[in-house]
Amino acid sequence: MTVHEKYYTLLAEQEKLLNRKNVVRSDFYNGIYERYQYPVLTRDHVPVHWRYDLGKRDNPYFMERLGVNATFNAGAIRHEGVYYLVVRMEGSDRKSIFALARSESPVEGFSFAEKPILWEDTCPGETDMYDIRLTAHEDGWIYGVYCSERKDPDAGPGDTASAVAQAGLVRTRDLKNWERLPDIATPSPQQRNVVLHPEYVDGQYAFYTRPQDGFISTGQGGGIAFGLCPDIGHPEIGEERIIDGRRYHTVYEMKNGQGPAPIKTEKGWIHIAHGVRETAAGLRYVLYVFATDLAEPWRVIAKPGGHFLAPLDRERVGDVGNVVFCNGAVVNDGGEVYIYYAASDTRLYVAATTLDRLIDYTFSTPADPFRSLDCALQRGELIEKNENLLQSV
Amino acid sequence: MTVHEKYYTLLAEQEKLLNRKNVVRSDFYNGIYERYQYPVLTRDHVPVHWRYDLGKRDNPYFMERLGVNATFNAGAIRHEGVYYLVVRMEGSDRKSIFALARSESPVEGFSFAEKPILWEDTCPGETDMYDIRLTAHEDGWIYGVYCSERKDPDAGPGDTASAVAQAGLVRTRDLKNWERLPDIATPSPQQRNVVLHPEYVDGQYAFYTRPQDGFISTGQGGGIAFGLCPDIGHPEIGEERIIDGRRYHTVYEMKNGQGPAPIKTEKGWIHIAHGVRETAAGLRYVLYVFATDLAEPWRVIAKPGGHFLAPLDRERVGDVGNVVFCNGAVVNDGGEVYIYYAASDTRLYVAATTLDRLIDYTFSTPADPFRSLDCALQRGELIEKNENLLQSV
Repeated sequence: MTVHEKYYTLLAEQEKLLNRKNVVRSDFYNGIYERYQYPVLTRDHVPVHWRYDLGKRDNPYFMERLGVNATFNAGAIRHEGVYYLVVRMEGSDRKSIFALARSESPVEGFSFAEKPILWEDTCPGETDMYDIRLTAHEDGWIYGVYCSERKDPDAGPGDTASAVAQAGLVRTRDLKNWERLPDIATPSPQQRNVVLHPEYVDGQYAFYTRPQDGFISTGQGGGIAFGLCPDIGHPEIGEERIIDGRRYHTVYEMKNGQGPAPIKTEKGWIHIAHGVRETAAGLRYVLYVFATDLAEPWRVIAKPGGHFLAPLDRERVGDVGNVVFCNGAVVNDGGEVYIYYAASDTRLYVAATTLDRLIDYTFSTPADPFRSLDCALQRGELIEKNENLLQSV
Repeated sequence: MTVHEKYYTLLAEQEKLLNRKNVVRSDFYNGIYERYQYPVLTRDHVPVHWRYDLGKRDNPYFMERLGVNATFNAGAIRHEGVYYLVVRMEGSDRKSIFALARSESPVEGFSFAEKPILWEDTCPGETDMYDIRLTAHEDGWIYGVYCSERKDPDAGPGDTASAVAQAGLVRTRDLKNWERLPDIATPSPQQRNVVLHPEYVDGQYAFYTRPQDGFISTGQGGGIAFGLCPDIGHPEIGEERIIDGRRYHTVYEMKNGQGPAPIKTEKGWIHIAHGVRETAAGLRYVLYVFATDLAEPWRVIAKPGGHFLAPLDRERVGDVGNVVFCNGAVVNDGGEVYIYYAASDTRLYVAATTLDRLIDYTFSTPADPFRSLDCALQRGELIEKNENLLQSV
């Protein structure tokens, strides 16, 4: 059978995309991070032969046989000097699978490796998998914690939407061969945004969780919690304590959740999290940041007011609009920090900063005063300080 | 302490933005108003020293310390020949504060004055303030009525979102010094979109209100209401009567509310209002217009069918998409009318018309027939009239 000639046309076009140099956006400045112009991954980055049957006889019109809808919410890790993303790749059938992409550069040139990731199928009820967090643990393994979703067994006969979310757990040493461990048991009926802390705490594995009552709603509970787990082979978290709760009239009013594994700095663990509020046009997801104590990572020691990163212009539009989400960030040996954030559940962007800047942001940004008039006072003080400085020069 | 050199770079860039001439959009025509090309206010118009700590020592990376997320929903007034906007300026912490911006021109060159507006903090429970309406009352004061939001005292322990909205009242003579009066008491449990009528009615202060049962939902009631208040120092509206109710299958089907204070014309008070309907992608906000009797401003005497202004292309995108909202309009001595409308809760645009055109629109636009087949008949009659005219020339 011959290869359809159209394949080579698409391949050449894709080559251009994969070789495109990424650049810092010149139309955005906040001093905190740089935003890169082009997405690091879109569905157009997915190899042609992952989507098309290349055979001319079997696919005479060279049709996409297995469409890809979106590539977003990627776990990220730097391993043996290479940047790896474990991407949430959503087929046009709405199911997400994990695909590994790699690059020598943190901001461009990501290419997909081999085939979509597979591991042992231990849970027949598991329908969807997504939003993996990668943690290089001090025990030597790279762990992945992902959202494992099943149809709600209590859903009524006409309810084809209700689901139950649990925390799936896998581990690897080479990012190719993955071992599946049992789901993480917690006191909460549902879990999303579960993340493994990179170090032992009190000699145990430590997790950030996000207890929730229902599938979409966090219910009475919610907030980012912390819990210990003595045995990673039979992972059970006995107690979840909320370390960063929701709060009225903030960017994390309605829901929040830990993003990637926290980043270790000399001043504390820096956490990138997402916060959600409700609007007349649906939920709005932004990223915010807080720090926890190095020795007691359940204790918040700094929390800048407001969002760290919010959807900007074109990022606002996609399958689920007005969303930025981050479950992957990477620090390299030079202290550069790359934050992979997805825009509107559709494509993956990157923002770049440094450990020094991230520390300065986290520990020097004023806290949220929680009330409009207090915010006006706070801003008034900054203005006055600046005016005095300007008058003195 | 020295000023960070990056300050002067950002200042120079902002100068360009502030000096940019605004122009009428050439790709939009409806004869009713002109739309201007550029927003009159965005977050990028907010002074650099309102957002950054300028000191090089305190802010070595020149980071935004108090980010601004959006500038929208502005009250507007012409005062001593100058155009003033009292802007809803939302920090990245989601709290809105009021900031005064002024310009000699109604369509460009708005610059922020001094510091965010402060007034006496009489209500410790007040969390957020927004959407002020300015009214130059015949008593000599300029009043502002704004939405004052508090956490719902009846919210359950896990409910971090429910709020109660009340009508806050302030007044000034110079737009600098503001006196806070008690909240406006009404028979309704919640209030938004409360607007002071510019003249006494039956010797009393008159308000447009929007009774609502819940925070987002208007509940059983809703509609634009009218009520009298004998004492502005102790503002209490004893009775609210609906003057422009919601109605099935209209652009104001789900919610509506008075925009700026009504505009006095020789033929009646012209009201710019917003109407809301629900869609699969959330609520859609448009502006519509009606007129009330000069002597009896509770009596609707004309109501064009359909929306007056709806989100257009880029206006559709923002923090809360598919929204236009207007709480400020200005008439100058030449009879020009400037309508300040916010796009998608993010930035502020202006549309321009004249009193003559606004009157013609209000009193000559056919009313809503409320049924598709009647709409087809109505349009058929217009077409027939036009065809007869075209054949006669």
